[in-house]
Amino acid sequence: MNAEILSIGDELLIGQVTNTNASYLGEQLSLLGITVRRVSTVGDRIDDLLDAFARAWNEHDVIITTGGLGPTHDDITREAVCRFFDTGLVENAEVLADIKRLLLERKRPLSASNRDQAMVPAAAGIIRNTNGTAPGYHFHRDGKHLFVTPGVPYEMHGMMESYILPHLREQFTQARASLTILTTGIAESTLADTLQGLESLHPSCSVAYLPSPIGVRVRLTALADDETFARARLAELRTFISDRAEEYVYGVDRETIEQNLGEMLISRSATVAVAESCTGGLVTDRITNVPGSSRWFERGVVCYSNESKTALLGVDPAIIASHGAVSRQTAEAMANGIRRTAGTAFGLSTTGIAGPDGGSAEKPVGLVWIGISSDAGSFAFDFHFGSDRVRTKQRAAQAALDILRRALMRLPLQPTSARSTT
Amino acid sequence: MNAEILSIGDELLIGQVTNTNASYLGEQLSLLGITVRRVSTVGDRIDDLLDAFARAWNEHDVIITTGGLGPTHDDITREAVCRFFDTGLVENAEVLADIKRLLLERKRPLSASNRDQAMVPAAAGIIRNTNGTAPGYHFHRDGKHLFVTPGVPYEMHGMMESYILPHLREQFTQARASLTILTTGIAESTLADTLQGLESLHPSCSVAYLPSPIGVRVRLTALADDETFARARLAELRTFISDRAEEYVYGVDRETIEQNLGEMLISRSATVAVAESCTGGLVTDRITNVPGSSRWFERGVVCYSNESKTALLGVDPAIIASHGAVSRQTAEAMANGIRRTAGTAFGLSTTGIAGPDGGSAEKPVGLVWIGISSDAGSFAFDFHFGSDRVRTKQRAAQAALDILRRALMRLPLQPTSARSTT
Repeated sequence: MNAEILSIGDELLIGQVTNTNASYLGEQLSLLGITVRRVSTVGDRIDDLLDAFARAWNEHDVIITTGGLGPTHDDITREAVCRFFDTGLVENAEVLADIKRLLLERKRPLSASNRDQAMVPAAAGIIRNTNGTAPGYHFHRDGKHLFVTPGVPYEMHGMMESYILPHLREQFTQARASLTILTTGIAESTLADTLQGLESLHPSCSVAYLPSPIGVRVRLTALADDETFARARLAELRTFISDRAEEYVYGVDRETIEQNLGEMLISRSATVAVAESCTGGLVTDRITNVPGSSRWFERGVVCYSNESKTALLGVDPAIIASHGAVSRQTAEAMANGIRRTAGTAFGLSTTGIAGPDGGSAEKPVGLVWIGISSDAGSFAFDFHFGSDRVRTKQRAAQAALDILRRALMRLPLQPTSARSTT
Repeated sequence: MNAEILSIGDELLIGQVTNTNASYLGEQLSLLGITVRRVSTVGDRIDDLLDAFARAWNEHDVIITTGGLGPTHDDITREAVCRFFDTGLVENAEVLADIKRLLLERKRPLSASNRDQAMVPAAAGIIRNTNGTAPGYHFHRDGKHLFVTPGVPYEMHGMMESYILPHLREQFTQARASLTILTTGIAESTLADTLQGLESLHPSCSVAYLPSPIGVRVRLTALADDETFARARLAELRTFISDRAEEYVYGVDRETIEQNLGEMLISRSATVAVAESCTGGLVTDRITNVPGSSRWFERGVVCYSNESKTALLGVDPAIIASHGAVSRQTAEAMANGIRRTAGTAFGLSTTGIAGPDGGSAEKPVGLVWIGISSDAGSFAFDFHFGSDRVRTKQRAAQAALDILRRALMRLPLQPTSARSTT
């Protein structure tokens, strides 16, 4: 079964909105065993839409569109789909009731444009929207399916979960298993060299390396007639990776390092506090994205000024004066200071030169010291993350979280790959 | 002049990577006046690539591909492009030298797969890569251009800036002006009602509303033979918006509220410090993404526990005991506390229930109090941001930054639209 994702909207073509809907839909369809063969994005022009509908309907079994269903004049998906299926509009009482209920909850009046959203294509099934005013449509002809959804991500997600995915699950199944191994602290090419032979282990499995600022993901996919067989193949590939690169693996699939850290800390009744300079709050932002993180995260400080490092963490001004704010000594003092003042089992710290200014020959832009303090003592390690400010923050935050993971798992605190090349 | 962006890679189809390259390219091409008519994404299958090349080359003048140029086995763009243009591979000495230099800088050895990347299509011009080992290719035939670039964003960006954009600028110009007005604190439909009549002001101008968790952007585009004329039309539309919704406008185009706040604070020699509970460091993460923010940002604290609110900010435990950690009184005490301890002109605070647990009938999930303290006194306002944890953090961080903007611009601290409906 092949699928196409069709994203609609000028804002996507001119780059004002990044197409996160397509990645969400691609993942959801893949998990069902449906092969996404193409993602197409077209603008708010009726001819381009009709052309895209025709091509998608001709080539693929399942088409999901997003966008162009809003109440404003630039939303033309409804018109296009009516023309494509040669159908007219009828008012749907259930949809109108949904719209009225939602607006009442939000204390907003029923505008004419909202009321018009209850006019739906006569030939379509209706996909109700619990998160917004635009209903979705479902066309089912000749064994093919076209699902039309809004572009607002959480409205579309709601329709996928309540209607589209259950509908597709009934119809399509094929044994495909996939597993993504999440690594950090090792470069893509070094990892690929370390895992030489992985690709040829099983011809029915595919391997892809996906680099990002926070690490390299290794995506393993197995196709088979039988799901148990596909999963067994994946397990063999996973063992191959574990045998060669275990220290770099912090999770699988959609896990995050912060989520897994939380589970490890909870299981030990341990807590952490964080003192950030160059990462500016990104470490604690990521930690607090995890539901329930208040059980294991006590506090953070963002000590951007030297005065705040002393006032909030008790860092001796003489350390900063003699070694600099970006130094092993300051990183260790910050980690010790936050651990002591917060009364936590672990203290983490970051201090570096995020750029674009402030670098020197001795301490270039991109230099970051990461510190950790626990009852095992305090340690700090230097990293070189390059000249892009936001990327350096991302990589440093990941390195800080990874050093805590390594401490909790009793692994070497510094990645072996970093040691061998510096 | 029409363009197509062709993104290549299974990881995009199955949703493991979000296609930020397409949004970057869409924006860059649009700024040149080139109309992006389609974004297509296909996987790592040679037939799908050849099909996509043929269609794009047939329909559009400029095609930019991203992805599939890496050193691993799943990278097949080079092979596909050679087949499409019926050309072979030759070693390019300049590319080989670039690869050797880059690996030397990174203290990595020259592997066989890196060396193979110096083999390039004989019929192509070379786009040098200063950020990675894969060169890009440029095919120019029959007045059409195909640019082939890697999928790693900053490698592709480097090629755009050093080669592709200068090249295109020479060839294509057309008078198109666009302006995006950035608003926050007002819902899309309320804003559209407030701006009724904007779309019909000039038939040659288009208007699009782009909602996101941090606000609604209003994109204005004018097409004309003459750029001065197009810009004048945009200025009229902008005045129309200013006359009706000025308090919600925090910037234009790619500006951010934190960047504009920084400029306002610097011009007044004022500084800010931030005390975050529910936003968990996201406010200071955004602030510290701005280069040079150390000039106006002094410190932040992430006081997740009640103890830390007292220890770091001097919040009276009796206030928390009688009103709760999520209350007007605690928000004001946190804002006062961070301002006093940091010695800054402004103190900001956030405290709320990000969820998914911890809500009650009186204080539901999504309730956030935002506090501000300055020499004008301390104030706090409540917001209801819904049940999604990460979205609530995003919206609360934006509201906190916006209250400081409103204070600096002597606007009502609470959005008028929020007052009228609650």
